[in-house]
Amino acid sequence: MRELYRQELAQLGAELERMGRGVSRAIDRATTALGEADITIAEQTIDADERLDENARTIDEMCVHLLALQGPVASDLRLILSALRLSQTLERQGDLARHLAAIARSTFPTRSIAEPAAGLITRMGRAAAEMGALEERLIITHDTSIADEISRYDDTLDDLQVEVHRLIGDDSVSLTRRQIVDLTLGARFLERFGDHAVSAARRVVFIVEGAREATSEGGIDAHL
Amino acid sequence: MRELYRQELAQLGAELERMGRGVSRAIDRATTALGEADITIAEQTIDADERLDENARTIDEMCVHLLALQGPVASDLRLILSALRLSQTLERQGDLARHLAAIARSTFPTRSIAEPAAGLITRMGRAAAEMGALEERLIITHDTSIADEISRYDDTLDDLQVEVHRLIGDDSVSLTRRQIVDLTLGARFLERFGDHAVSAARRVVFIVEGAREATSEGGIDAHL
Repeated sequence: MRELYRQELAQLGAELERMGRGVSRAIDRATTALGEADITIAEQTIDADERLDENARTIDEMCVHLLALQGPVASDLRLILSALRLSQTLERQGDLARHLAAIARSTFPTRSIAEPAAGLITRMGRAAAEMGALEERLIITHDTSIADEISRYDDTLDDLQVEVHRLIGDDSVSLTRRQIVDLTLGARFLERFGDHAVSAARRVVFIVEGAREATSEGGIDAHL
Repeated sequence: MRELYRQELAQLGAELERMGRGVSRAIDRATTALGEADITIAEQTIDADERLDENARTIDEMCVHLLALQGPVASDLRLILSALRLSQTLERQGDLARHLAAIARSTFPTRSIAEPAAGLITRMGRAAAEMGALEERLIITHDTSIADEISRYDDTLDDLQVEVHRLIGDDSVSLTRRQIVDLTLGARFLERFGDHAVSAARRVVFIVEGAREATSEGGIDAHL
């Protein structure tokens, strides 16, 4: 029973890693699609979101199964509930990457982001992609110091979003209405991606610290 | 033990009702703040969001407590996990109402929404407020037919958002850049509020049907 339980926890961890990789890849590719007006990558990113939704469902089922059959104690319980929340956050991040790719697709073959703002959105996209990669690494390695790095990138994203809005407000910069809409939403999606990355990172830190406490108390050797 | 358990489930239900009322009130007031450029209501709505965040924390703690101490069986488990997700959705809806109020505050004493679009945003706001009220009623009465009504309003919101973007794209309509940004984000927040209302409604239906099954099987008499 205990052996099976550990196996199931390990599978849950593996599924979270898979989903973390998927989200990291999605935001990286959405950024490319947007920056290079690449319709193929945009469509692949949009299609790939279904797999992320599937990942989330699998994680949720695993968690419910573990909760129902194992009646977990305090630290396991927190681990499993955190995994449940994490799957929701990662799923939402996948949606945001899909929305960004959809912006790229909707204006193809023209670039969605107007030239004067392209640099800012590219920097936001790179920061978001970096956060996605760090989030993936945090989920896999459990190196909690990564969480601080993620927070720093989030500050960068917030600052860049302010700059985007300053640029939109500058009437000397030539922008069409459609470009203003795409810029507003593009910056918003990237900034939200960052918020979710921060909240995901907090959740992983919470899981890892909970597992450490449990181990030092002679409790479970949690995979997460 | 069983008596205490039922009491705790009833408290959880009451806390969800409280939060449902708070969200319904928040979106209603955010809509008023936006439509009437009312700074007092805008600030009250922004401040009130803290209470919603507190509601969410209380619900989460109650759920964790129930899971930890009662080792719930299948249908109770689904009830408690649904409540956990519901609190997250309601919290997010509160955030969106706060964002809308913040738009109203940021342009005070001027109305945030330009005259030609004011009618559309007011209609979106009314639809969202109606959804909030229905969501509250669904949480309190468990009348699952309300869920369909919520879905219909969501379609209305989606259609209105399309109209907003058509209006933005119409160069004969006079709009400043700032107005385009506020319109884009305002419509987006309202549309997201609607999405969350639909997902919350699904969750309540799931809870209610689960409780009915359990009761007909001679299981728990769940308050939810």
